[in-house]
This record gives sequence, structure tokens and C-alpha cells, in this order.
Amino acid sequence: MAARIVCFGELLLRLTAPGAERLLQSWSLDVCVGGAEANVGVSLAAFGHVVRFASVVADNPLGAAALGELRRHGVHTDTVLSAPGRMGLYFLEPGAVRRPSRITYDRAGSAFAAAAPESLDWSGILPGAALLHISGVTPAIGANGAAAAVRAVKAAAAAGVPVSFDGNYRALLWEAWDGDGPAILKEILSCATYAFINERDIALILKSRFEDRQSAFEAAFEAFPRLQAIAATTRQQSSVDDQSIAGELVTRAGRWTSPVHELPGVIDRIGGGDAFAAGALHGLIEGRDGQYTIDFAVAAGALKHSIPGDFGRMTVAEVEAAMAGENLDVKR
Amino acid sequence: MAARIVCFGELLLRLTAPGAERLLQSWSLDVCVGGAEANVGVSLAAFGHVVRFASVVADNPLGAAALGELRRHGVHTDTVLSAPGRMGLYFLEPGAVRRPSRITYDRAGSAFAAAAPESLDWSGILPGAALLHISGVTPAIGANGAAAAVRAVKAAAAAGVPVSFDGNYRALLWEAWDGDGPAILKEILSCATYAFINERDIALILKSRFEDRQSAFEAAFEAFPRLQAIAATTRQQSSVDDQSIAGELVTRAGRWTSPVHELPGVIDRIGGGDAFAAGALHGLIEGRDGQYTIDFAVAAGALKHSIPGDFGRMTVAEVEAAMAGENLDVKR
Amino acid sequence: MAARIVCFGELLLRLTAPGAERLLQSWSLDVCVGGAEANVGVSLAAFGHVVRFASVVADNPLGAAALGELRRHGVHTDTVLSAPGRMGLYFLEPGAVRRPSRITYDRAGSAFAAAAPESLDWSGILPGAALLHISGVTPAIGANGAAAAVRAVKAAAAAGVPVSFDGNYRALLWEAWDGDGPAILKEILSCATYAFINERDIALILKSRFEDRQSAFEAAFEAFPRLQAIAATTRQQSSVDDQSIAGELVTRAGRWTSPVHELPGVIDRIGGGDAFAAGALHGLIEGRDGQYTIDFAVAAGALKHSIPGDFGRMTVAEVEAAMAGENLDVKR
Amino acid sequence: MAARIVCFGELLLRLTAPGAERLLQSWSLDVCVGGAEANVGVSLAAFGHVVRFASVVADNPLGAAALGELRRHGVHTDTVLSAPGRMGLYFLEPGAVRRPSRITYDRAGSAFAAAAPESLDWSGILPGAALLHISGVTPAIGANGAAAAVRAVKAAAAAGVPVSFDGNYRALLWEAWDGDGPAILKEILSCATYAFINERDIALILKSRFEDRQSAFEAAFEAFPRLQAIAATTRQQSSVDDQSIAGELVTRAGRWTSPVHELPGVIDRIGGGDAFAAGALHGLIEGRDGQYTIDFAVAAGALKHSIPGDFGRMTVAEVEAAMAGENLDVKR
Amino acid sequence: MAARIVCFGELLLRLTAPGAERLLQSWSLDVCVGGAEANVGVSLAAFGHVVRFASVVADNPLGAAALGELRRHGVHTDTVLSAPGRMGLYFLEPGAVRRPSRITYDRAGSAFAAAAPESLDWSGILPGAALLHISGVTPAIGANGAAAAVRAVKAAAAAGVPVSFDGNYRALLWEAWDGDGPAILKEILSCATYAFINERDIALILKSRFEDRQSAFEAAFEAFPRLQAIAATTRQQSSVDDQSIAGELVTRAGRWTSPVHELPGVIDRIGGGDAFAAGALHGLIEGRDGQYTIDFAVAAGALKHSIPGDFGRMTVAEVEAAMAGENLDVKR
Amino acid sequence: MAARIVCFGELLLRLTAPGAERLLQSWSLDVCVGGAEANVGVSLAAFGHVVRFASVVADNPLGAAALGELRRHGVHTDTVLSAPGRMGLYFLEPGAVRRPSRITYDRAGSAFAAAAPESLDWSGILPGAALLHISGVTPAIGANGAAAAVRAVKAAAAAGVPVSFDGNYRALLWEAWDGDGPAILKEILSCATYAFINERDIALILKSRFEDRQSAFEAAFEAFPRLQAIAATTRQQSSVDDQSIAGELVTRAGRWTSPVHELPGVIDRIGGGDAFAAGALHGLIEGRDGQYTIDFAVAAGALKHSIPGDFGRMTVAEVEAAMAGENLDVKR
Repeated sequence: MAARIVCFGELLLRLTAPGAERLLQSWSLDVCVGGAEANVGVSLAAFGHVVRFASVVADNPLGAAALGELRRHGVHTDTVLSAPGRMGLYFLEPGAVRRPSRITYDRAGSAFAAAAPESLDWSGILPGAALLHISGVTPAIGANGAAAAVRAVKAAAAAGVPVSFDGNYRALLWEAWDGDGPAILKEILSCATYAFINERDIALILKSRFEDRQSAFEAAFEAFPRLQAIAATTRQQSSVDDQSIAGELVTRAGRWTSPVHELPGVIDRIGGGDAFAAGALHGLIEGRDGQYTIDFAVAAGALKHSIPGDFGRMTVAEVEAAMAGENLDVKR
Repeated sequence: MAARIVCFGELLLRLTAPGAERLLQSWSLDVCVGGAEANVGVSLAAFGHVVRFASVVADNPLGAAALGELRRHGVHTDTVLSAPGRMGLYFLEPGAVRRPSRITYDRAGSAFAAAAPESLDWSGILPGAALLHISGVTPAIGANGAAAAVRAVKAAAAAGVPVSFDGNYRALLWEAWDGDGPAILKEILSCATYAFINERDIALILKSRFEDRQSAFEAAFEAFPRLQAIAATTRQQSSVDDQSIAGELVTRAGRWTSPVHELPGVIDRIGGGDAFAAGALHGLIEGRDGQYTIDFAVAAGALKHSIPGDFGRMTVAEVEAAMAGENLDVKR
Repeated sequence: MAARIVCFGELLLRLTAPGAERLLQSWSLDVCVGGAEANVGVSLAAFGHVVRFASVVADNPLGAAALGELRRHGVHTDTVLSAPGRMGLYFLEPGAVRRPSRITYDRAGSAFAAAAPESLDWSGILPGAALLHISGVTPAIGANGAAAAVRAVKAAAAAGVPVSFDGNYRALLWEAWDGDGPAILKEILSCATYAFINERDIALILKSRFEDRQSAFEAAFEAFPRLQAIAATTRQQSSVDDQSIAGELVTRAGRWTSPVHELPGVIDRIGGGDAFAAGALHGLIEGRDGQYTIDFAVAAGALKHSIPGDFGRMTVAEVEAAMAGENLDVKR
Repeated sequence: MAARIVCFGELLLRLTAPGAERLLQSWSLDVCVGGAEANVGVSLAAFGHVVRFASVVADNPLGAAALGELRRHGVHTDTVLSAPGRMGLYFLEPGAVRRPSRITYDRAGSAFAAAAPESLDWSGILPGAALLHISGVTPAIGANGAAAAVRAVKAAAAAGVPVSFDGNYRALLWEAWDGDGPAILKEILSCATYAFINERDIALILKSRFEDRQSAFEAAFEAFPRLQAIAATTRQQSSVDDQSIAGELVTRAGRWTSPVHELPGVIDRIGGGDAFAAGALHGLIEGRDGQYTIDFAVAAGALKHSIPGDFGRMTVAEVEAAMAGENLDVKR
Repeated sequence: MAARIVCFGELLLRLTAPGAERLLQSWSLDVCVGGAEANVGVSLAAFGHVVRFASVVADNPLGAAALGELRRHGVHTDTVLSAPGRMGLYFLEPGAVRRPSRITYDRAGSAFAAAAPESLDWSGILPGAALLHISGVTPAIGANGAAAAVRAVKAAAAAGVPVSFDGNYRALLWEAWDGDGPAILKEILSCATYAFINERDIALILKSRFEDRQSAFEAAFEAFPRLQAIAATTRQQSSVDDQSIAGELVTRAGRWTSPVHELPGVIDRIGGGDAFAAGALHGLIEGRDGQYTIDFAVAAGALKHSIPGDFGRMTVAEVEAAMAGENLDVKR
Repeated sequence: MAARIVCFGELLLRLTAPGAERLLQSWSLDVCVGGAEANVGVSLAAFGHVVRFASVVADNPLGAAALGELRRHGVHTDTVLSAPGRMGLYFLEPGAVRRPSRITYDRAGSAFAAAAPESLDWSGILPGAALLHISGVTPAIGANGAAAAVRAVKAAAAAGVPVSFDGNYRALLWEAWDGDGPAILKEILSCATYAFINERDIALILKSRFEDRQSAFEAAFEAFPRLQAIAATTRQQSSVDDQSIAGELVTRAGRWTSPVHELPGVIDRIGGGDAFAAGALHGLIEGRDGQYTIDFAVAAGALKHSIPGDFGRMTVAEVEAAMAGENLDVKR
């Protein structure tokens, strides 16, 4: 049965150079809606869950369009506030061959970043939810965001709603406002049941060094008693268009690894990690076993690389077919 | 010298999602004209033959546009009737990476499917023709189509016009009207001189099992005395964008196999089999030897994968250059 | 306060030639979602009402995309069923100068038209609704549609939910299945509280002739005791791009006419009548006076002509500014 | 019954700035095929006649594409030769408001201009033809073109095939090679049965001055005994987008004038005169009376202004509807 | 001979909905470069002057692209600084029929607005210049902008470089930072030789009321002894697409008015006032008489309405042809 | 510090079929500016040098647009003359899979080719320059071009400005006017300090045969005493989309080879050699060591394959990152 899931974070507009052009080489931009938590929400809705987005958007046509796009993909937006200000933007120059993709952020001073931490009334949003999902981007965007993120996960913990946290550590964002990233993320992680983090994140937060991913995960389980599952991916990039991903899931009970998915001819790498997180949450929420969960997560993340835009738009049937290594010929 | 060839079948409009988008991800569709027999006809016209299309299209702007496109590619359309009704459509969502392409058919109830089997006056169409080409799609679309296909090949056989038949077995189409596919295809094959079929098709039609392709082909030659040549491809797909094809030609006199053509960066896989068939027919009609014929066929099929749309648009010189493994640098 | 409104009808995909091209002059089509009742629903949602769509769509990617687009514009789709079959399509060749726009319908045999009349469970849909809106297209598409439409309005009447009916008489549709249009529309109108019909519609339904619009409206009020308000537009077209509309509203208590809105440089005339109906329903449901209601309706209909696609996407503030004859310079 | 018509002239590729942009404001160009005689031929084919194009094109992909587009519109191309060289091009910057459209020609040195005057074998082309159509552009492009044009009309006259001549006087072309335009056009006109010329053309050719159009036409009938009909248009342009045209037809037996067609919102003015000529030829060839003929011609010319590209693509039914002042609302 | 002109102001990127779509109706945006002073500079460069832009842009790919576009149009950019921060943006939803165009500004916090007033070294920029052009937008964007604008005009006045000032009063911008617009603009105007202002601007700045435009202009000449010429336009808008403009020029010596230019089918109204200002400056700098100057200015402003984007791209010959009421037919 | 560099050659407009379409498969073309020397100039400007282009372009909107595009990329155009005539064009059909890209040239009779050899006043262009760059295309286009090229390099040699020469041998161009390529290239090479040539070019010019590249280079150093450095690439193409390049640099002092850069998913191969030349010139002019120089050159050439159009648009930082084998993940 479908779970009720709340995703909390900032909605962004992505403005992308067409084809493989350099940014503004020609004078048009493709626009899509994105943001780490929105991406997770859209994938979970495509998997059949009831997803509600909690956020603050600009009270202008850009904000309204972004909400419309969420609704189009089945995500409820009635818990999103509108406020004066601007939408966060990011400009993407897609890479090719051996030229990496480049993002120019233009998200400072957004309505979300300027919103007071107490803007959202969690007492009206959380009851009945099976999960609150949040990412490390929200606390990184400024003092308001950090306070809002901590407030959200504490409300969830208090209400008995499991928290999912995706690290997404962005050093530049933290540095821009001199925020104490490790301390704040530690506070958030202490409320989390599920975490999408790797050894680099854990080292940073726990101010330790680890010999390998496994020992980092063990340290995290020890440091954060609420934590039940950690998942992470390993990505190889032999060229911008030719990558591979694999993943692993570790719980207090066991460890499962996925096969490697080769990804020749990548269409859009942005949001691949969010689709992976959504896939893992699908398995975890539905109580599937560890192997299914990590295989589903990696297959979802892999499939995302074939879809333009931030959003994954895969059904459970499509992800399971990819897990099963279906024949790749035209489906008629 | 150019041969006169008649292709009989349904013209379809293909509506394709742009780029690698999911169907209707954005709100435009690229349109092209297709259909198995039209694809063969356009390739044969590009090879220099005089090709005439025989069909029934809707008497509306869509039908007129489809005929115009055939003429653009040098196929004569004066033996196509217009009738009330709709054009058959199919919607294509091109795949990428490990996400297969998907077709949503919308061809039920078309003017072609609704046309009476005796609509076309074969006595006016066949005289002087060197070949009648037909595919297994036409008899599969319904009782009218099945009757029309049988009527066509019998008229050709009676008129001494060799028949070429491309299996194209589509189980879903046959099931939709509960048609006896194997029986009808057997009747058609008994009139055919050239067949594009594989061991799966033959097993189905002869209600036998075969250990391998060769024994199936031998059984076909035995069952169908008119049959002089069978050709088939073998396709590998390591990803949606990275495939390979090879082919073999078997006659009562011998067997020839082509080298494998690697196809990295496939642009459009639809119509690849039709271009192969056209290539083989070109060799057979022109009386080329078996090796040239299968090599030309596979090179034509391979080149089709570089061209958007259903149609192959390669000249004989281009196919022969690909056969010869020409240098791939820019031709100035 | 926002009213809860149910719109019942068929969702269509519109495929439009780009620019002023003839249909398939170039090989791409712009796609949008439309249908008379969906158009009304989207406008009412843009005016702030809670709108729920009731329908049957094809259980394929086209149906799913159409529903997504409704949600994008704030219309709830949880009362739409998915069923095997095809989506109804229509191809639009936009006119220009003195060449009229032309529509090629391709809606026969759609999942909606094939749905059993009792598919929708009105006992779960209607409670709490302030309005059921339906158009004359639904009963025209066949015996199933006619039975479903009658069933819907009778359920509404029985549940005390006011019914709004937009005539939209399409002779070709009725003729295609030999339906008794006048008799069925009469049955529907006898359940309606609000009607968007003109003297031609009334004459047809009542099998009478009228000297003018007023006497036709009087006859309608006499024939249909539930009817409380009739609204109709008058359209002039000095060229395809240069039109004007005006409207009138008649109730049992009075008659109001709008000023004429000149519409030079029309962008998209399709859906103008639906935006007018939505505007009138907005005034009627909100209990505004007759003059506001007809002025709002005509201004909404007029503004629709500036927006590409079937849907109106105007806010109440924008319509009221147009009513007030706002300055037309750039709004900064 | 359909007449067999031969059009002789140069095929051009037109490269057009998109929208209302200045040339190369953005970096794409829309391409279409044009040329005065091809435009006439396509319109005549759309009116149901059997049209054959006689020309020389470059033996490269551009020439092949141009021929394909003619065939798409139903014009036969088997009497077109391919020769080494380039295709003639012209770049169009469409105007708007009060900024006129501008053409940058790039047609010097084309394969057509370089072709020997005797390239085409008229003895194989003309037999059975009801008309040879030619324009004043062909002789203007150089000594070869002038000789070829004279050769063509003399061959037609000798074969008893009526000649239609459209003046299209382009001073710049004649000056570029110092050709004696008046003398050569006089020679051509002396072979013509139908002429599309105005008082300016006649004054130039006859080296006279005329008080008005009528006296010029009278002088032409006197000077050219073969001439049976002259038609000309009058165009008003209150802005680039807002024009009107009217026309008159004069024969040795009478004079007929059309109503004025107002053309607000012009889409594409190029080819309007060619569509007018095609319309007049349709009436003349079919033996319609003078009033029908000039009304049909002007309606055809008027409708062309609604269609992007050089080609008119109107059916007889559409032109006749425009003649009749049909209602301009959407045709469903 | 060409004059050397310096334009000082902010470069903006404009992101425009395609066609007549509502903002983000579809998911692409057309991008162009704009800003009041850049628009003036590009037009002056197209008129043959040597134009140098002085500004501060973001040191990212967006800033670099904006500078490239200025250079493309012949404006020198070596006096533009790059600094950390963002580019100012504005989103344009073009209107149609009776729906006004709407701008959503997103320019707060730009690198230009954040730049220290003393960033630009005027002692290196002004020497040899014949003019410094500035608009009222720059001082309105914040304390930095106001100080920078005052600093610039004082430096010009001290260096003996005439100052041109275009009012462009934007109340919303001044209110956003509580700036004393009238006082600052007064300071700037006191340094100006040429002003593009109307009676509303003058009333605001002089805190007076005027019966008509003439008395306001007289008061301005009295209040600002340096001022030698004032020019202003009058715009009528019967619909979004159908406007007219006229202009007047007043000096201490006389007053000249232009004819009214009707503008049916407006393509892009943004930048019309800037093209007018550039046209007037061209006449003033070149020492043309008052009538030529105002006629050239209004013709330039009028022609701008036919060109997509912020920039005018008209040559002197084109403007003079429009002044002369040239024939509007295709220029070949 | 930035060097002042002069590039001399013809500017071309490239018209490219969109996507992987065959030429004019659909009816639009993407346009960009190119030409071997312009490509080198744009890359050098992107590397921070002061680049001036010397050429003759058509005095029409196409020539003006081409110059604007050079300026956009930071190349000065004040030493380019405008003259009557046409712009050279080339049509590109991009290849895919195993179908090679094809160029249809249309550059005969251009304003550049027609310009008198003495058109450019080198005494005003060369003083202060650190380099004159020229390619073997210019002398190949005809007697004028050959004379102009020889005149340019002699003027440079006389003025003490080092000459860089890129072979670019195009047999078809030389044959078209029966030019003595080897003799003329020999004359040019005798003035060159830097040469981009391979063993095939040298054999042709010296009318010798060489066993390998090294012996050819040695012969060149012997034959041309001014020559200080030769660089050349080696390209492998396993498919149209999957290539590799490596390079070597040889001076009188040593020899350096680069690593091989694998180029899967090539976006645009045109201009790759020009970007390589620009990279080598950057290293040579800046006095970098041989290894840095060849590594930078090959990395620049490799990166060009990721950018649509003729121009490289890479910064020094980007090239150096590619040299260093930077991580290919998204740069944020």
C-alpha cells in the first residue's frame, strides 16, 4: 500500500544550455524544475507513493510554474507557502566527451533561503506521514535554512515520523555564510533513521578519518543510535557520456551490494543520486529485503541517467525490468 | 537497369518524443512517415529502382501528407487509394542508455484496416513488375488485411511476379482479432520467392521446433517450393545506443554470412530490418552474388541506424563504401 | 470562498501545426491537452475554485500525460478512470489572414467513447459539489456517451447539485452514430440550472423557430423549469486574426449585455467559448450581479484568445483588469 | 479534366530568418524551395493539373532535396537535369510593422545559369502539353538563360503549345550581365498566349509611355498577335503585415476586375504573384469565364499570403470558398 | 565623422517566454541581452558611432556572454569590470491582443548593484568622449547605484563631456531601498545636456504640477541651466499588438514634432524608448536640425518595434527610409 | 602577457543539418561562422591573446553577421574589408555511427576569392604583431588567394613577424583552378616559423617520399631554414562518434609526444585541428616547454570535439584541467 511521504527542501529552476552547447552559445535555455528533495519526491510519486512537498516558493509566475510541475508529476503542493522574493536558479552547461558539465548557481537570496525557520507548521504536516525526507542542501543555504532543517527533523522525531537524510555536502554553500556544517549535520543525522552518506561525509561530521567505507558506516551507526540504514553509490566516469554506478546498503543487520550498471551514452546525470535515494526509500518503506532494496535503488539511479531533466520518471515495473536485465530492444 | 517494384502495405505516421524525452515530457512531437513496406520501398527507390506503393490511406490532410513524403523519396503513389477513416499512428518514445524504446500503437480502425480486401485492382498494378513486396504486418491487422494480403500474393503468383515476404511477426496484433497467424502466413509464404524470416517465425508457421537456424531454413525450403532465398539478421544490444548486426543469406544453392557491423551511438533503430530487406532485394533483383547481396544488405541495415526516422535514405555508393570499410573522417 | 466543482467529459490531445503552417507542412506538431469540459475546469481552477475532473482516459502514456497536465493547472484527477483503448485526438491547422483554421478529428473509438455509461460512480463524486459541468459533446460521441451524460445529470439533479450545460452542438458527431440529438439534449437541459446555448441550439432542441435570441431564451425558460440562467456570445470575424466577441446573460429576473471586446491579432481562438462559460460560472457561483457576471465572462473569453492552447490560464485579477479596460503597456 | 503543364525555370533554395528576426540575428535558418516557375507549378498541381518541371539543378544533396520537395507537392521532375555546380540561393529577412522584408540574392553562377541553352530536349518534353509556363527571371540571369528561354518558347510555339509568360522584371539581374532585357522579353512575349505583366513592363518592352494600364494592355495586344489574355494585380501595403490585393484580366474580348481582398496579418508575401498566375492559368486552361478566372486568381493569390514558404498549397475548394467569402470560423 | 560615446549602466539578461505563451507555459526561454543604456549603445553603434560600455558584470559565463553580445553589435567592452556575484535578470511574458506584457524582475543583488560607486575609473574612460549616456534606472537600483550615477555625471561635467540622461522612472525600484529618487535625479539632471523626460518625470523631480508638457519642459530648462534639449514620446495602444508613437524635441531655441507612426503587428515593444533616445542623440551629436532629429528619433523608435529583443539593429539608411515613408514591399 | 596575433584567411558560413539528419531531411539549418584561420583566432582569443582578423567579406548582411560573431568571441575585425560579392558557404551533414560526415562546399566566387591580392595593406596591419597565422586553404582557392597568401607571408617575413602555417591541403580546391599547389606552398613554407603539416604534406611539397613522419620532418627543417617547429596530430576513428587524437611537436632541438585522448561521443569534429594549432601556438608564443606545448595543443584539440560549431571556446584553465586528467563529474 502507498505510504504518505513528506519531502522538505527548496524548489529550484534549472536553466540548461540546449544540446551540447556552451552556456548561452545560442540564445535559448531549456527550463526544468529541480532540487534534491523535489527529485526524490517525484520519483517516489512515480513509484506510487502519496508525496507531499513542504517548502517556500516565490509568489511570482516562476514559483507558480514550479509548483504546477510538481503537481503534474503527482506530488501534492498544498503544504508549500508562497512568499515575496525570488526563485533559486541554477544554470547548467551540459558537458560532453571529456568536458565536464558545469553548474553556475544563482540561488542566493531566494524566497526559501529568506523564509523564517518557523514558516512551516509541522504540526499540520507530519501527522500520518511514514517518512520525512530532507537533504544536506537545505541547512547549507544559510542560517534560516539550517534552523529550519533542524526544526523539521526534530518535529518529525518528536512525532515519531522516521527521517531520511541525504548528505549532499556542498562546501561552497557552507562557506558562503560561514556555517558550521559538521555540527549542524550532526544534529540532523542524530534524528535520522535512513541516511544517504558516504565515508567522506561521515569523516567530516564525526571529525574522524576512516580507512574505508565500512568502518565509516560502523562509526556512524555507533554515533547515531536512531540510524537504521545507510546507502551509498560508487560512480566511475570514463568519459562524461560513459559512466557506471553501483551501490551498497548497510543496516545494523547486514550489508548488500548491487551489480555495476554500465551507463554508456548518459543523457542527464543530474538527479541520479536522488533517484537512487528514492529507490532505496521505496524498498525500505515497503519492507523489501536488503538485496531487492539496493538493486532497485541502483537500477532507479541508473535509469535516471537516460531521462532529461532533474526528475526521475520511472515506474516500479520499469525499474524492476532494468534490475532483471531485460532485453533492450524496442518494446512494442 | 532499374527494376519495377511494387510494395503493398499500410502507411503509418510516427509521432516521436524529441531528444531522449519520455513521451509528452515536453509538448511537441516529431512526425515522420513509416510502415514496414514503405520503408523498404523508399530504400529501394534510393537504390535507383522504380518503386510503386499500393495501399489505402485516409482521405484527409494526414493521408495526403504521408503520400507526399513517399513521393519526395521517389516512390510513386498513383496506386494508392484514399478512403474515409483515420490514419494509423504510432507514438515512439526513444530509449537511451539502458531504457528501451517504447512504442504505443494507435492504428486500430485505420482506413487501411477497414478497406475491403478487393479494394486494389491488382490486374492494373502488377503487369511489368519485377517484384511484389509485402510484410507480415498487413495480414496481422485484421480479417480485411489478411484477406487482402493473401489476395495480393496470389495475384502476383498468378501473374508470374516474384513475391518478397518479410515476416515481422507481431503476436499482439494477431491476438487482437483472434486471427490464425500461422495458417495465413503459411499461405502467403507458399507464394513467396524471397523471405525475411528467422527460426522463430518458421517454427511458428510450420508448428515445429528446430535445433538451429539452419535446420529451420532447410525445413522452409522443403515446405515452400517456390522459395529461393531466405535472409535474416542477428542483432546484439549491449545498450540501447550500442548495438551490432550481422546477417546471413541462404538459397537452395548456398549460404553466405556478413561481417558483424558494430553500431555505437545508434541514432534510430526503427526501420533497420526494412533497410536490410531492401538491401537484400537490391542484390537479389540485380542478380549479384550471395556474398555481395548479404554484405550489401547488412551494410544498408547498419547505415539506417544513423538516420532519424523510419526511412533509409542511403545511396548504393554509400552502402558500398560502408561495405568496404571506408575511412570515417569527414568527406569534403 | 472557493466552490467545489465537478467537470465531466472527454480529455483530448490536440496536435497543432506550428506557426501558420499547413498541417504537416513541416514534420513536427505541438501538443496540448483540451476538451470542452477540461477547458472550463482549468479556467475555474485558475479562478481559485476546487475543481475535480471526472472522465475515462486511455491507460497508456498519452492518457497519463493528459492527466498530469490537468493536475499542473490545479485540477484534481482522482476521479478519472483509466481503461484500455486509445485517447481521442484532434489535429489543428491554425488559419491566418483569410484562411480559416481547420480541425481534423481523430477521436472515434476512444477509451472514453467505449466506456460503459455506468463506469463512474457518481455517488462518490457528487456529494459536497456546488456544480456539475457538462457539455453537448459528450452525449454526441455515441450511445455510451449519451447514456453516461444523462446518467450524470440525473445523478446531480437527484443529489441536489446544480448542473451547468454548454450546448456545443456538433452535427457531424450526432450523424456519425445516428443519435437523436434533440431528444437527448432536451433530457439533459431539463436537469440544468445554467445553460450556454443560443437560439440555434434551442430551436433544434425544441423543434421550433424563433424570431430572435430573446424569444428563444424565453421559450427555453418555459420549457425547462429548473433553468435559471442562459448565457451566449456573439462573435464577429473580419479576418481569422481579427475578431470581436460580446455576450449576454439572461435569467428569469433580468438581462445583461457586455461591451464588445475587439480582438486584433488573435493567438488561439480554440477554447474561447469555454473560457467564457467558466467566467460566467465564476460569477454565478460566487453570487455576483448580472452585469459583473457577463462582463467577467466576456473578458475571460476575450483574454483566452491571447493564449496558445485550449486552456485559459487567467487569474481573476487579470480578467478584472481587462474588464476595467486597463492600460495595455508592459506591466513591470 | 486535368491538363498537362510544363513549367521551365530555375529552382532556388530560400533561407529565411526565423520569426521576425533580422538575418542571422539568431543562428538558424528555415529553408524552403522556391522560384517563380516552381511556385506556379506547385499551385497548379494542387489545383489538380499534371505538372512537369523542366530545369537544371546542381548534382549535389541540395539539388536532390529541391527536386524531392517538388515531387512531394505532386510536380513531376523527370525532365529536370542534374549538372555540376551550385544551387541558386536567396536569403530572406522577413519584415514586420514598417520594416520591409529584404532579400539577399546569392544565385550567381548556379548550375542553371551555367547550363548550355540547348541542355533541355524540348522535343521530348513538349508533346501533349497544354501549356508551357516561363517567367522573366530566366532570361534575366544571363546569356545562357536568355538563350534558353527564347529557345523554349520558340519550341513551344513551333509545337503548337500555348506559352504563358510572367514578367517578373528584375532590373538588377539584367544589369549584372548587361543584357538587353526589353529586346529579349519582346521576343519571348511574341510567342506568348497568356501574359502576367503590367503597364511598367509593357512600357519597358515596347519603349513607350502609357497613360494608364488599359492603354498599355491595348498596345500589348496590338504588338503581340498571339497574345490572348493579360492579367495583373494591384497591391496596397498600409504596413508590412497589412496589405490588400485586387486583380484584373483583359482579353481581346473583354475585361474583368476582382473585388479587393484585404490581407491583415500577412504570413508570407513571397509567391503571392505566382499563386495569382497559377489561379489565372487554372481558369484559362479550364475554359472558365473571365469573372471566375480573375476572382479565382486573386483569391488564390490572397490565400497564399497565409502560408509560409514560396509555395501555394491551396485546393480548388479552398480557393472557391475564399471567393465566396466563406465564414472564417474554425472548420471542424 | 563618428563620435565617441560612453554608455554607463547595468547589463541585464532577458529571459522571454516563446511565442505568445504565458511564462513557463512550455519549458524553454529565449534569452537576449538588454538594459536601457546598452540598448542605446547598440543603436548608436549601428548608426556608426564608436561606443564604449562602462559597467560591472558578474565574473561568470552569463556575464561573459552578455559582454560578447555587446561586442557582436560593435560596442566596446574594455571598460567593463567583472566582479563576483550574479547577473541581473528579467523574465518577460510577451502579451497579445488585450493581455499586456508582464515583466518579472530578478535583478536584486546583482554584481552591478553591489559594486562600490568608485569601481569605475572615469579619468581613464571619459577623455575624448563626445557624450556620456546614463538612465534613471542606475540610480534607482540602490545606494551604490545612486552614488555611482552621481559620480559619473559629475566626472563628465568636470571633464567637459556632455551628459545625456534618460528618465526611465521606476517607482518600485526606488521604493525597494527607500531612495530619495527626486533629489538624486535632480542632481543628475543638473549635469545633463540632453534629457529624455516627460512632464510626469519633471513634476516629480521639481515637486511641481504642470498644466501640460510644454510648461513642464520650460520649467526644466529654467531649473537646469546646462540642459539644451529635451525629447519625449507619446504612445497610444489600441491593443497590445497595435500601437503608435510620435515624439517631440524641445531646445532653448525651438520645438519640433514628428508625424505619428502607426505600428500594427508590434513584434517587440521593449527598447522602443531606448531606440528613440539613440535616434535623437544621433541627430543631436551630428548637429542635424531639429526636425530631422525628432523625425529620425521617432522612426528609429518605431522600427525597433519590428525587431525581437531589447536591441535596435537599424542602420541610418533604414531609419531614413522609414522617415521618408518608403514603399513597404519586399526589397530585393 | 598577451601577444598580438594576426590571422589571415577567409571567413565562411557553415550551414549544418540539425541533429543527425541528412542534409535538408527537415527544412532548417543551423548556421555558424568558421574557416580555418578564424577558428584558430577565436581559440587564441579565448586563451587571452589579442587577435586581429585580416580578411575580405561580402558587404551584405551575411558578411556583417560573420564579423559580429568574430567580435563576440573577442577577435578584432577592424582590419577586415567589405567588398561586393558573396560569402563562401559550406553545408555540413553530420555523420553518425558508421556514416561519415559530408561537406558540400559552396565557396566558389566569394568576395574573398575575388579580392585583388593587394587588397589588404599589410604595412598597417603587421607592425607590433607577434605572429601571422595563415592556412593552406587561402592559396588553394584561386590565383588571387595564392598571390594574396604569398604577399602576406612575405610582408610578415620582411617585417620580422613570425609566420605560422597550417597545411590543410585540399586537393579539390587546387584542381578546380589548376593551381600549382606544391610550388606555392613551398614559397609560403619558406617564410614560416611554425608549421602544422604532416608527412603527406611534406612529401607533396618537396616532391619526395618518406619512410616515416620523422624523416619527413627532418627534410622539412632542412628545406626551410626559417622553420623552428612542426606539430601534427594522429587521429583514429573507430566510429564517427568515437575517435582519439594524439600529437607530436618537433623542433630543431627536440621532439615531444602527447598522450592519446580518447574521444567517445564526439559532438563536432570540425575545427579540431584548428584548436590543436591554436593550442600549440599558445605554448610556443608563451615560451612554454615542448611537453607542455604539445600536451596543451592536444588537450585543446580534444576539447573542441565536445563543442558544437567550428569554434573552440575553451579557456586556458579548462585546457589545463583536461591535460591534468581532471575528474569528469559535474563542476558545481
